Amino acid sequence: MAKIHFDTDYMSGAHPKVMERLMETNFDQTPGYGTDTYTAEAKELILEACGTPDARVFFLVGGTQTNSTVIDGVLARHEGVLCAESGHINVHESGAIEATGHKVLILPSYEGKVAAEDVSRYIEIFYSDETYEHMVAPGMLYISFPTEYGTIYSLKELQDISDVCHKAGIPLFIDGARLGYGLAADGGDVTLKDIARLSDVFYIGGTKVGALFGEAVVVTDPNLLKNFTPLVKQHGALLAKGRLLGVQFGALFTDGLYDTISKDCVGKAMRVRNIFTEKGYKVEVDSPTNQQFFRLPNDVIDRLKEDVSFELWGPRGETETVVRFVTGWTTTDNDIDTLESILNQKS
Amino acid sequence: MAKIHFDTDYMSGAHPKVMERLMETNFDQTPGYGTDTYTAEAKELILEACGTPDARVFFLVGGTQTNSTVIDGVLARHEGVLCAESGHINVHESGAIEATGHKVLILPSYEGKVAAEDVSRYIEIFYSDETYEHMVAPGMLYISFPTEYGTIYSLKELQDISDVCHKAGIPLFIDGARLGYGLAADGGDVTLKDIARLSDVFYIGGTKVGALFGEAVVVTDPNLLKNFTPLVKQHGALLAKGRLLGVQFGALFTDGLYDTISKDCVGKAMRVRNIFTEKGYKVEVDSPTNQQFFRLPNDVIDRLKEDVSFELWGPRGETETVVRFVTGWTTTDNDIDTLESILNQKS
Amino acid sequence: MAKIHFDTDYMSGAHPKVMERLMETNFDQTPGYGTDTYTAEAKELILEACGTPDARVFFLVGGTQTNSTVIDGVLARHEGVLCAESGHINVHESGAIEATGHKVLILPSYEGKVAAEDVSRYIEIFYSDETYEHMVAPGMLYISFPTEYGTIYSLKELQDISDVCHKAGIPLFIDGARLGYGLAADGGDVTLKDIARLSDVFYIGGTKVGALFGEAVVVTDPNLLKNFTPLVKQHGALLAKGRLLGVQFGALFTDGLYDTISKDCVGKAMRVRNIFTEKGYKVEVDSPTNQQFFRLPNDVIDRLKEDVSFELWGPRGETETVVRFVTGWTTTDNDIDTLESILNQKS
Amino acid sequence: MAKIHFDTDYMSGAHPKVMERLMETNFDQTPGYGTDTYTAEAKELILEACGTPDARVFFLVGGTQTNSTVIDGVLARHEGVLCAESGHINVHESGAIEATGHKVLILPSYEGKVAAEDVSRYIEIFYSDETYEHMVAPGMLYISFPTEYGTIYSLKELQDISDVCHKAGIPLFIDGARLGYGLAADGGDVTLKDIARLSDVFYIGGTKVGALFGEAVVVTDPNLLKNFTPLVKQHGALLAKGRLLGVQFGALFTDGLYDTISKDCVGKAMRVRNIFTEKGYKVEVDSPTNQQFFRLPNDVIDRLKEDVSFELWGPRGETETVVRFVTGWTTTDNDIDTLESILNQKS
Repeated sequence: MAKIHFDTDYMSGAHPKVMERLMETNFDQTPGYGTDTYTAEAKELILEACGTPDARVFFLVGGTQTNSTVIDGVLARHEGVLCAESGHINVHESGAIEATGHKVLILPSYEGKVAAEDVSRYIEIFYSDETYEHMVAPGMLYISFPTEYGTIYSLKELQDISDVCHKAGIPLFIDGARLGYGLAADGGDVTLKDIARLSDVFYIGGTKVGALFGEAVVVTDPNLLKNFTPLVKQHGALLAKGRLLGVQFGALFTDGLYDTISKDCVGKAMRVRNIFTEKGYKVEVDSPTNQQFFRLPNDVIDRLKEDVSFELWGPRGETETVVRFVTGWTTTDNDIDTLESILNQKS
Repeated sequence: MAKIHFDTDYMSGAHPKVMERLMETNFDQTPGYGTDTYTAEAKELILEACGTPDARVFFLVGGTQTNSTVIDGVLARHEGVLCAESGHINVHESGAIEATGHKVLILPSYEGKVAAEDVSRYIEIFYSDETYEHMVAPGMLYISFPTEYGTIYSLKELQDISDVCHKAGIPLFIDGARLGYGLAADGGDVTLKDIARLSDVFYIGGTKVGALFGEAVVVTDPNLLKNFTPLVKQHGALLAKGRLLGVQFGALFTDGLYDTISKDCVGKAMRVRNIFTEKGYKVEVDSPTNQQFFRLPNDVIDRLKEDVSFELWGPRGETETVVRFVTGWTTTDNDIDTLESILNQKS
Repeated sequence: MAKIHFDTDYMSGAHPKVMERLMETNFDQTPGYGTDTYTAEAKELILEACGTPDARVFFLVGGTQTNSTVIDGVLARHEGVLCAESGHINVHESGAIEATGHKVLILPSYEGKVAAEDVSRYIEIFYSDETYEHMVAPGMLYISFPTEYGTIYSLKELQDISDVCHKAGIPLFIDGARLGYGLAADGGDVTLKDIARLSDVFYIGGTKVGALFGEAVVVTDPNLLKNFTPLVKQHGALLAKGRLLGVQFGALFTDGLYDTISKDCVGKAMRVRNIFTEKGYKVEVDSPTNQQFFRLPNDVIDRLKEDVSFELWGPRGETETVVRFVTGWTTTDNDIDTLESILNQKS
Repeated sequence: MAKIHFDTDYMSGAHPKVMERLMETNFDQTPGYGTDTYTAEAKELILEACGTPDARVFFLVGGTQTNSTVIDGVLARHEGVLCAESGHINVHESGAIEATGHKVLILPSYEGKVAAEDVSRYIEIFYSDETYEHMVAPGMLYISFPTEYGTIYSLKELQDISDVCHKAGIPLFIDGARLGYGLAADGGDVTLKDIARLSDVFYIGGTKVGALFGEAVVVTDPNLLKNFTPLVKQHGALLAKGRLLGVQFGALFTDGLYDTISKDCVGKAMRVRNIFTEKGYKVEVDSPTNQQFFRLPNDVIDRLKEDVSFELWGPRGETETVVRFVTGWTTTDNDIDTLESILNQKS
């Protein structure tokens, strides 16, 4: 029996409807670097979905690239970016932000989330310090939605964070590498329009939500990133065959495919969660999205690993360890049935 | 009648055989970031073709990205990269090299090529200057093969350049964004094995030779780029679904597809060239590869533009202007027949 | 009555013997950028004092500049620098390290010090993480001696830290902006020769120990910073009239002036400490060097401030606040007598 | 007989009046980092001399440092700095500008000067190129006054350059490392007030005009460099004992000392020039400032070198070589008499 996989949501190619569009358009000849009509159409679809007709959209290839390009473009040279200690840019991007010359300024992380009060307090303390010019000024706030722990902000929390940022005059940037799953979260009350309204720049992740690759940056603040294209090029993030991004996002934003994929994955993740909790295993983080974290006995982990692939979350503990199970667009109900029967046998 | 296109070689998607492999493997689930078996197999195929079993291969997404990541990884902080004045990194990468902190050091360009003697002289004069520590040390040489003008080095020229570099102790880096066309050049005597043997690091361009995207970096010097993967990640160049690069390069290096595409395009470019020269137009640069440069009267350009798309090469002159015609894997014999008949009508 | 000052140790010009040498040599004409004989002589004096005849010495102007230049020169592009959370490079250098592209990697701070076990654990956990290539590799360790809290490492602690670094193959860099005070510390057992023997690169602070400005970088590891002069120039740290640094350090390392200044200041700091503790005030950090930290009631602070200048250490508390008193080469016994009588009146 | 020196203008310490003020104020205790009253007073004196009461003044330590800090602060991430090919930032700063991530964009050099028309043409051609977003945008203009060849702009030339810059919306930055000599130039018609009026940011060099070190940056455009102090700190350019700069510039701008030194040196340089031209030697560059360039036979050079030190300007020629003679504040009339008699003997 082949193993079933819950390692992550970027283990396969693209959703069949995305591949179909790539095949249909494969022989078309278009100008490069995203100046084609597929790209223009995809931008329109995205702006419509966001309810921000005047915003600007840029397509980049991957998440780390998008984070470093946006942050480099927003910050002044003496500024850094506020971020939860657990934030992807602080932990898992090989220093991409610092490589552009900017410090990542650490905020406490509450299961991956930052608190509006902490942002507010950081800024207040910073400017009340007489030596603040010898420290790195907070120039923007980075949050992820959903976070690296699969958690999401409520609309109220997001509104508060947005208010704090705008009161302090610093832009709010939302990393939406898994945005779809956050919007489709079980019990969530945040919409794409809310994200667009409350942030100054954010992106809609394609790589982890059904595309081969690609992230759609939406800049809602007209004063930000005014010369973004040369910076995208400078960061090596301007795809020659840019229309590949337009075609893919065009497919994802046609007939609600992006939402459908997201909801389906979250639904499957809820099934995975139930299977584990019904067996009495502890949920480590209360995640309403497609990433689920459980604390399992090491012997159960070892037996499961024979037939199922998934990641340990952090170092292996003495008797039990936190593991992550992720659903993606290729996860089938049959996979989850199999997982359930394996778990019944092995735990 | 639809326009025919000779703008560039990245106007379509991927060669059908590449797309076919992407479709076949689309539902497979593999680990991310190039740790999959498709990628491992593609690396083996490339090393075999290069005749360098001990070299290392890394897959990146695009050319500018590859240039800046490689150069940033090779140079020490106080060093710059030698480059023809016309070199892509000096002209058309939005300052991507400087953005990593390194100066591009200019050498004379002879239709895009550098001369071994100029490299040698630069280094000699540099170190004979008493204030050389106040100047940027030449830390590597960048050349493109073929060049931005479609020209190529002969094996003798390449050998001389390689000798000069190695005598001076500086690595030779070859930008092979269009490498296939250089190897398939009309009258060329350089093979892939020569490229691998004479350089210290080079890349095999996929984006412009039949792939959707992708560049295969081959590091032949075991002392270079020892910790390259974190640097690739830092540069935002590590594709999450890395296997997409493995699958594509696997297809390109199976049954000689890469060579076949390249030879076919060069052959078609030679037809284009003949059509123009037979009509009495002047070849601006003597290019044996898939880019052809002609000097055309402005009125001919204007009439051609009605039915054919192509690029002006530099600013429009008073009465005549240099233009570029490029063939790609989608260029058909029929396109060229059409071009010929249009030219017959319009000139 | 003029205020007496305990704000910091860089409030005056240079020690009279340093000024005397600057005056004596003022009309001499020497070549620039530290290629003069005063500089050569000062280097010899320093190497002799360090017991490292084969080490190399470079003179830079200030501390932040020295930290960023050394760290930029030591680290590879994918590496960061380990540092106590309270370290100067992490807190008070306006992001100078990040501006060179490198992340500051945080270790726990124990009154400004790092623990050898924490360094060891960080490195071990880092390389045991499967995704370590997506994180910033620890490429060197930065410690300060004395620390920002005036504390010092014992010889045993320093030896352990050095052992951990060398076992892991990462250089140990000691920020000695106040090195003299650390070596002259009350109860300390570390000598300059120990510093030179146990570290790979360190610097001897002049700015805060009697010079107008200047830091003497000593590189004991022959494989480090092989092309340091161009990097110093690139960082804007190569003084045109470089002999000013040679003359000053020549004076400081003649007849033990550097030690004399340091011991005198530490002795005076111990007097300050006694004055406060005898009045029953709490010592906040047990510092054996020229910086002393006390927790004082706010009303005492306010009254003292009328006649004495000193810094609050961190934000003002509700009823009491930590303050810092620093002695420098201009602090006189009379100043301390005055402080004592003021404190008697005002507390 | 001791050699006489014409190597450069930074061979000695500081002008006696500057040293006197440093000695007088040596024991004063002031707050650090330029927040003292000496610095405030010096700023006032400079602003008065510039006729720009609302401009801002910042003191940095050296020229390369000042260039890289100002340019880094002015440019957006995608921009580069226009500069004559011979400009100091392009040639002799070890890549300090590129190290901050910015390309130096080359203009033709006319004995060190740029032409307004070339600036205008560069900008026009740049924005008329369809691929301009793939190239580095000209974000400011750097010129030096006097230039590296000792030449100066006329008021008309400077006005034209300023007009071109302001029409194009790019700031004009003047490197005034030797500003005094330019203002005192033989036949020059540019005043300090003109410099302040026509540029957006410039600096008044101290290092080469009588100070131990120090450059006074004057920012006349209120929209530029709004958060400059943290950037100065980040660049390692914020002197702890900042008052040393205030004291020195205070002395230089009291009773016209800066002008007096400059005029005296230029006068002496004119004497040097006459001595050589009267002997029939060729002036290589027609410089009206304190740097003089002659083309001398190699055998004359060799004989002169026995008693006089000076620099070869570029590589030694086959039979004759260009040499540079520089006067500084320590150059005496007696030195020049000696030079004359040596030249009479040896040529």
